[in-house]
Amino acid sequence: MAKPRVVILGGGFGGLAAAEALGQSADVTVVDRNNYQTFLPLLYQVSTAGMAADNVAFPIRGALRKSHTKFRLGSPIAVDHKNKTVKLDSSEVLPFDYLVVAMGSVTADFGIPGVAENTLGMKSIHESITIRSEVMRRFEDLCRFEDKTRLKIVVVGGGPTGVEMSGALAELVRGPLKNDNQEAAKLIDVYLVEAGPRLLPMFAETLTTRTKKYLEKIGVNVLLNTAVSSVESGRINFASGEAIDSQIIIWAAGVKGSPAVADLSLPIVASRLDTQPTLQVTDYPYVFAVGDDAGAKGANGRFLPQVAPVAMQQGRFAAKQILRLAKGESLGEFKYVDKGSMATVGRNKAIIQVKGIKIYGPIAWFGWLTLHLFYLLGARNKFGTMVDWSWNYLTFDRGNRNIFDSF
Amino acid sequence: MAKPRVVILGGGFGGLAAAEALGQSADVTVVDRNNYQTFLPLLYQVSTAGMAADNVAFPIRGALRKSHTKFRLGSPIAVDHKNKTVKLDSSEVLPFDYLVVAMGSVTADFGIPGVAENTLGMKSIHESITIRSEVMRRFEDLCRFEDKTRLKIVVVGGGPTGVEMSGALAELVRGPLKNDNQEAAKLIDVYLVEAGPRLLPMFAETLTTRTKKYLEKIGVNVLLNTAVSSVESGRINFASGEAIDSQIIIWAAGVKGSPAVADLSLPIVASRLDTQPTLQVTDYPYVFAVGDDAGAKGANGRFLPQVAPVAMQQGRFAAKQILRLAKGESLGEFKYVDKGSMATVGRNKAIIQVKGIKIYGPIAWFGWLTLHLFYLLGARNKFGTMVDWSWNYLTFDRGNRNIFDSF
Repeated sequence: MAKPRVVILGGGFGGLAAAEALGQSADVTVVDRNNYQTFLPLLYQVSTAGMAADNVAFPIRGALRKSHTKFRLGSPIAVDHKNKTVKLDSSEVLPFDYLVVAMGSVTADFGIPGVAENTLGMKSIHESITIRSEVMRRFEDLCRFEDKTRLKIVVVGGGPTGVEMSGALAELVRGPLKNDNQEAAKLIDVYLVEAGPRLLPMFAETLTTRTKKYLEKIGVNVLLNTAVSSVESGRINFASGEAIDSQIIIWAAGVKGSPAVADLSLPIVASRLDTQPTLQVTDYPYVFAVGDDAGAKGANGRFLPQVAPVAMQQGRFAAKQILRLAKGESLGEFKYVDKGSMATVGRNKAIIQVKGIKIYGPIAWFGWLTLHLFYLLGARNKFGTMVDWSWNYLTFDRGNRNIFDSF
Repeated sequence: MAKPRVVILGGGFGGLAAAEALGQSADVTVVDRNNYQTFLPLLYQVSTAGMAADNVAFPIRGALRKSHTKFRLGSPIAVDHKNKTVKLDSSEVLPFDYLVVAMGSVTADFGIPGVAENTLGMKSIHESITIRSEVMRRFEDLCRFEDKTRLKIVVVGGGPTGVEMSGALAELVRGPLKNDNQEAAKLIDVYLVEAGPRLLPMFAETLTTRTKKYLEKIGVNVLLNTAVSSVESGRINFASGEAIDSQIIIWAAGVKGSPAVADLSLPIVASRLDTQPTLQVTDYPYVFAVGDDAGAKGANGRFLPQVAPVAMQQGRFAAKQILRLAKGESLGEFKYVDKGSMATVGRNKAIIQVKGIKIYGPIAWFGWLTLHLFYLLGARNKFGTMVDWSWNYLTFDRGNRNIFDSF
C-alpha cells in the first residue's frame, strides 16, 4: 500500500507535532511562511532584552530531519478540493490525500478602533524585536532630552502574555535601565490594563491576587475593569472616558484563528474552522484542523484555549487519525488533557495550577524555567537560553538591549 | 581643575577603547547611531548561520557602565569649531574641549559600476542578516523547483573577510544544507574572486597557498587575477570579458573611511582625515582621529590597515594624548605595534603570522577562537558564542539558519 500523502499547513506546535507523529508512516510535507518555528511563549523575553532573537527560532528543516519529512517555504493561497491539491504563493501545487490545517492565530482586536494601526502585537519575532527597539529607543530619547516627560508603556490584556510582558518590562526598567541611566529609568511607567475584574482568570483567585500584588510591588500599574474603547496614535482611550497618553501600547488582549484559513475553501465558524470531535473539518473528512484554527470544543461546550498544549495534543491526535483513516479504521474523538496552567511573574516568581494544586513562588518559577527549556526546540537554543537566563539571574542585567531596526 | 569634556564620535573598537582609557579622568560622551557595538570580525558567522545576531552586538551603555561614561544615540551632522560644539541629528548640541572621531568605515566600491546597487555588504548586523536570509531563501527556492538551475554565490575580495566568508559558506553548504536537502545543496557553487595574484597578501606565501588549497578542497572556486569590471543584477562581469551569472554577490573587497566624516568640517585626504603622527587632525589640535577614519601612516609611509587592533591602540593613545594636552604636557607620536595577523579558513583550519612565526592548522584555529572570544564584549556574548561554536563543532550543524526578513 502506498503511503498516504499528507500536507501540513503550518510548522508551529501543532503542525510539527503532527509531522513528528506521522514520521515515516506517511509522505509528509510541511508548509510554512517562515523557515523556522517561532517559540511564541518566550517572545516577551526577546522584547524585554532577556533573550536573543535567534534562540526562540528553530529551523523547521532541522526539526524534520529525523523523520525525513519534506518542507516547503510558502503560504497556501487556494485548495482544489476536487483534485485534492493545495496551491502555494510560490505557484507550486502540492497534491495530498489528507490535509492538516495548523496555521495558528493572529492578534484579535475585537473590533476596537485603532488597535491594528496604533498598537504593537506579540505574535512574531519581527513584532517582538519591534517592541524591544521601540522601548530602547524611547529610553534613549529620555536620556537625551531630560525634559521630565514621562514614558508610559501600556500592556493591554491580563492573561498570561500580558502579565509576563508587564512584569518583564518592569524588571527591565528597575534593573538594567536604571543601571544604564537612573534619571531616565525613573521617568518610565508600566501599565497593565484588563477589561475583566481580575488577572489570569484561568487561575484560582488566591494566585491571581498574589500575582497582582507582586506586579504592583515591582512597579506595574495594574488597572482592572478597564475596557479599551479606542486607540489613537500616542493615546489609549477607555470605556470609562479616561485615557492614558502612551507612546508604546502593546496588545496582548487575545488572538483569533488565522484569517489566511479563509483561502482554503473550508467552513469557518467564529474565525475557526468548523471542526468535528474527530478533528475533521465538517463535510471535509480528509481535512484535519489542529491548534488555534481548530473549532474543537472542550467538555464545557466551549472552544478549547488557543495554547501550545492543545495544539501539540491535537497535532499528535490528527496524525493518528490519518493513519487510521488510511487503513480504513474508525476514528476516535479528541479529548484535551489539561495538564494545568503556569505563568511567570518575575524573578523567582511564577504560578502553577495543576488540578487542585496551586504553587506560587520560586518552586513554580523553577518549574516554569525547566518546562520552557524542555519544550524549546534544539540543544543550541536550550543552551543559548540557559546562558541568557543565567546571565540575567546572576547579574540582574539583560544583555540583549540592542536596537535592531526591524527583523 | 575641571575635567576636560571629550565627545567621542563612534562606539566601535576605537571609540570604546578611548572612552575606557579616559574613564573618570574626563567628562566623556560617546555618540553612536546604534545603541550597541557591532563585533565586525564575526559578522560572517551570523551570515552563515553559525552565530546568533544578538551575540555579535553589545549594548554600549553596558560597556560604559564601569567608567560612568555618558552615551548619546545619534549621528553628528555638524561641528561648530568656533564654539567647539557638535550637533547631532536629534538636534542636541554637545559642547566639547576635545573631539575624537572614530566613526569607522563603509564598503568601498572603487568606482566599479553597479557594486552599490547589486552586491551585499558585510559592515553591519543588518547586512549580515540580509546575506543569511538571501542564502537561505535561495536555498528554499532550489528545494522547491528542482529545475537544476545552479545557485552561484560570489564573494569578491581575497582578504581575511572574503576568505572567512567563502570558507564558512562552503562549510554551510557541505554540512547543514546537505543534511537539509542533499539535491538542493549540490546545486550551490561558491566562488571567491580576487583581483590580485594571491589570497591574503599580508600573509606569507606558504600560508596563503595552503589556504587556497583548503578552500578549494571544501568546494570554493578560487579565481585569482580576476578584476571585477561591473556588477549587474544577477551578473558579475570581469575585466577579462568573462562573467558569472550570480544571484548572490557579496562584496568584501575593501573599505574606506566613513563618508559621514565629511560633515565635520575637517580636512580629508583619500577618504581619511588628514592626521598628524600625534593622531591630531591637521590644523585642529583638539580633534583626534582614531581607527578607520584616521589618516595616520605606518613606518612604511602608507596608511595603517583598517583593522580592529589599529583602532584599539589608537583609541587608547588618543585618550592619553588628551589627558596630556589638558595638563599642558607635550604629545608623543603614535606607533602601531603589529601583533600579527590571523584568519580562519574553516573547521580546525586557521592561519596565524606573528613576526617570523607562521602557524597553520588546529593550533592556529584554536588561537583564533580564543582571541575572538576574548575580544567579544560581555560574558553573555562570550558564553552564548561558546554554545553556538560548540554546537557547530560537535554536530557539524549551524543552528541559526533562520530567515529574518530584515534587521
